[in-house]
Amino acid sequence: MSKITMAHGAGGSVMQRLIKEKMLKYFGNGEAEVSLAALDDAAVVEGIVFTTDSHTVKPIFFPGGDIGRLSVAGTVNDLACVGGRPLALSAAFVIEEGFDEAKLEMILQSMASTADEAGVRIVTGDTKVVEKGSLSEIVVNTSGIGRRHELLDANLEIARRFRDVKKNWLLDSNVADGDVIIVSGYVGDHGTAVLSAREGIGFEGNFVSDVMPLNKMLEKALGVGGICAVKDATRGGIANLLNEWSEKSSVGIVVEEEKIPVREEVRAACSMLGIDPYEIGNEGRVVLAVVPEMAQQVVEALHETKEGKDATIIGQARKDIDGVVLRTKVGGLRVLQPPVGDPVPRIC
Amino acid sequence: MSKITMAHGAGGSVMQRLIKEKMLKYFGNGEAEVSLAALDDAAVVEGIVFTTDSHTVKPIFFPGGDIGRLSVAGTVNDLACVGGRPLALSAAFVIEEGFDEAKLEMILQSMASTADEAGVRIVTGDTKVVEKGSLSEIVVNTSGIGRRHELLDANLEIARRFRDVKKNWLLDSNVADGDVIIVSGYVGDHGTAVLSAREGIGFEGNFVSDVMPLNKMLEKALGVGGICAVKDATRGGIANLLNEWSEKSSVGIVVEEEKIPVREEVRAACSMLGIDPYEIGNEGRVVLAVVPEMAQQVVEALHETKEGKDATIIGQARKDIDGVVLRTKVGGLRVLQPPVGDPVPRIC
Repeated sequence: MSKITMAHGAGGSVMQRLIKEKMLKYFGNGEAEVSLAALDDAAVVEGIVFTTDSHTVKPIFFPGGDIGRLSVAGTVNDLACVGGRPLALSAAFVIEEGFDEAKLEMILQSMASTADEAGVRIVTGDTKVVEKGSLSEIVVNTSGIGRRHELLDANLEIARRFRDVKKNWLLDSNVADGDVIIVSGYVGDHGTAVLSAREGIGFEGNFVSDVMPLNKMLEKALGVGGICAVKDATRGGIANLLNEWSEKSSVGIVVEEEKIPVREEVRAACSMLGIDPYEIGNEGRVVLAVVPEMAQQVVEALHETKEGKDATIIGQARKDIDGVVLRTKVGGLRVLQPPVGDPVPRIC
Repeated sequence: MSKITMAHGAGGSVMQRLIKEKMLKYFGNGEAEVSLAALDDAAVVEGIVFTTDSHTVKPIFFPGGDIGRLSVAGTVNDLACVGGRPLALSAAFVIEEGFDEAKLEMILQSMASTADEAGVRIVTGDTKVVEKGSLSEIVVNTSGIGRRHELLDANLEIARRFRDVKKNWLLDSNVADGDVIIVSGYVGDHGTAVLSAREGIGFEGNFVSDVMPLNKMLEKALGVGGICAVKDATRGGIANLLNEWSEKSSVGIVVEEEKIPVREEVRAACSMLGIDPYEIGNEGRVVLAVVPEMAQQVVEALHETKEGKDATIIGQARKDIDGVVLRTKVGGLRVLQPPVGDPVPRIC
């Protein structure tokens, strides 16, 4: 009998297959404006943006964040990436019997301050406790609702001055030939920070997670206009993200290795561990596809925010190629494959 | 250091304290129409009804249902109980590595058919996998969104012909002196069914869970009018429910033991196990508080539905008493205490 493996939850091709073959078989009958079948980060139903994420990060406290900040930021970002203005979150806890109340309180405090940072409220919740030994510590689910961002229409209108834009939300299927690909900051920080905090891994250095809510940064970018797609580079990293875009938008994407910001210590740690920094999950980085005429202005707007100060153009969508291609520093071309799964399990 | 215990998730007074002392301390700054601070089953934000529940029922398959049906019905019922029309659900899975894909598929199928039954769609989701041994099988979180039910205004208007009704949703704080208390069917079925399926418990009989979506039944009742509060009798059973109403509405409630429908085998099993059938969680039963002038018509409307065919009047809210009082079959009075927690852990 087939069994669920770690790869089924790792954000790569194995997980995509599980979702397409099983979840969509049963849940895919959507008439929603943006339905489950689109496999974007959020759905849209009668104008309400709606998303959910369960968080199982290990360890639950890591440099730069914790499971509470992760859950709030992750859900806020999913709402914001499709073009939503986050309105409210739910918080549901499954806790192992014997868990320290003080740790729970630290998580709650972290969730509250991250929600404040994002300007969103936690309005409903649930708490379940399971017997000691039947869960490792705590699982936090956050779901979120939002409205269509009031700047989204103007943003799309500006994009439409330059090319046809099929979808009315910032979806994975909305990337087209010529779009400039922008990343909002350094990649690989979150995955390596979580790994560095994990027992028995044993590598040292100054690794700090990028986990943060990006809705205010994205609002600045929307105010410029011309953005066609936004996605946060979580499980499977930018390699997974770019491949999802390429597949769903039926367009090739070329990215320049020397332009992708990766910190030296992150590159060294990845090299030591034999993992690809482009496949590692981030929790405070998004990739944007922008019409070329507006790309520079969008980057400048991002630079004015603390969340996007390291934003940079890394490539372009091109109809004359297939899939995702990385132009290496020495000028060669290599296919950036869709990862089977994130090389670091349980980073979110 | 204080530790989380099973009682913190059991729906009784210990859980209430955790929520009031910890959750509300950090998340209680709501300007929502119905906020977390109300501690109802759902919140209302800008007209959107929003709720969440994580499900850890053990075993995951039990007579009359499974974790999938439970999660969909539970979330639909939370939306419907405050007066919402369920619109869409999310489904987030945390799965133990090695879990059978066939079991997952049975759960998905059950969620899809329960969603069909309720007329609601599952539009967004998430899947995480954790290492073998760090979770027992699977946790399912369902969150839900809904709109104000179009019959709610007329329902409240009818109630207001007879008395002042403070709140514009069907909240726990909306019960008042004279309201007739109606239960929609037999109590104790779900908890005993789950227990009967649990290894090592060893009692036999024909126990079948009541788990089902009640939104269509409640719609029929709303069409009659005069309903002021509705709540599903989950963790902590009707004993917890009635005490929550009494406390939040500042009104006493008297219920007649001989009128509370409990199946003979459920009563026998509870007696054998030394637990109170009124403290056991149900997953397909609600209690309604209705102005006395409309109560009989509401019961008749419930009788026309398959979900409410055994609905019956069990008592009345009374300002001249404190707390919840049970008039026993022999005519005595006993205080129905708020339970410390559900006597059966992990029933939902």
